Amino acid sequence: MVQLQNSQACLEACISCMEACNRCFHQCLSEQNHDELSECIRLDRECADMCAFAVRAIEAESPFAAEICALCAGICEACAKECQMHDHDHCQACAKACFTCAEACRKMAA
Amino acid sequence: MVQLQNSQACLEACISCMEACNRCFHQCLSEQNHDELSECIRLDRECADMCAFAVRAIEAESPFAAEICALCAGICEACAKECQMHDHDHCQACAKACFTCAEACRKMAA
Amino acid sequence: MVQLQNSQACLEACISCMEACNRCFHQCLSEQNHDELSECIRLDRECADMCAFAVRAIEAESPFAAEICALCAGICEACAKECQMHDHDHCQACAKACFTCAEACRKMAA
Amino acid sequence: MVQLQNSQACLEACISCMEACNRCFHQCLSEQNHDELSECIRLDRECADMCAFAVRAIEAESPFAAEICALCAGICEACAKECQMHDHDHCQACAKACFTCAEACRKMAA
Repeated sequence: MVQLQNSQACLEACISCMEACNRCFHQCLSEQNHDELSECIRLDRECADMCAFAVRAIEAESPFAAEICALCAGICEACAKECQMHDHDHCQACAKACFTCAEACRKMAA
Repeated sequence: MVQLQNSQACLEACISCMEACNRCFHQCLSEQNHDELSECIRLDRECADMCAFAVRAIEAESPFAAEICALCAGICEACAKECQMHDHDHCQACAKACFTCAEACRKMAA
Repeated sequence: MVQLQNSQACLEACISCMEACNRCFHQCLSEQNHDELSECIRLDRECADMCAFAVRAIEAESPFAAEICALCAGICEACAKECQMHDHDHCQACAKACFTCAEACRKMAA
Repeated sequence: MVQLQNSQACLEACISCMEACNRCFHQCLSEQNHDELSECIRLDRECADMCAFAVRAIEAESPFAAEICALCAGICEACAKECQMHDHDHCQACAKACFTCAEACRKMAA
């Protein structure tokens, strides 16, 4: 029961995080000066892809779901820490979604 | 304004359709006899991937978003028609999500 | 026979193009001033994803392979034209791979 | 130098493995009786996606490339062991590509 709740929460967090990363990626590239946003842009792409992969694993009840979520937690946290350093609204929103997803993925992986 | 509403509706329909296809894919393969579900399984995978790609295009305000959604509408409709022929709950649910997504994608592409 | 040759050529072109786009994406973001490379970075990501999707369609003998390759041709051409405008070696290499892939995809789609 | 060689070898192994999994997925679903191939079909999809993700990580020199390859090694090995149990040529070819990729990914992750 707890496992099912964790799974559903993790799924929702991964989808929200994927969306926040996709939007932050696009908006970073729309900023006038995005030289300092390189790592943010890179991590946004990787984190969005990782979350999409985790979603498929959870929905397919993959035997690797826990391991995939453990890796996803690490990538989400790195993306959150990078985004957090930038004042843009999209970076702050992305950081928040990434931290939430990292926590949900850690519970799922436990 | 209408465009923005179409875009948001299309985004939500693509995410729901992606999820329904992922679940139907997994559940088709869990059926005791899934020989007759081959096309359903194939289309579930392709449709889930197509929807995920459309989501990225919409969220990145891609200049190809309309063309991508036009293609997505075609794949969703094919998946819907295939799923509709099978009585399993997951196939019926998937057919519904695919038809909804096909319509939202057609509006987005218009 | 011609169709099989087109299919194999298209597959190889899509994989090479995907790789060139992935590398160009990374190297654009490593340039000291990448403000003028925004469109390049965006299109690199979209084109890499599109090529990966086309690869799956060809290898799965998807009934949508021709339509997917037609769309892929358009995205490859846009990416090629953008990359071509930048002097960096990775942009020039990417432009070349994208033009080759666009042509192979058009033959596949025909 | 050794690291660069490992990276290039891993990249090539991941692309070959992705292709073998895509083909095995399609051909499993084309077999007359694919009830016993369920796990093979599931793992083919997951392994193809995992390899595509690893390719992007290697080509983007991601700080997570080693961790991603470690996970990829595990999924490749599971897919190899499953495919190995089936006599179909595509399953045997896929098993071989998966074992090769698992080994290349382990070296990359080390």
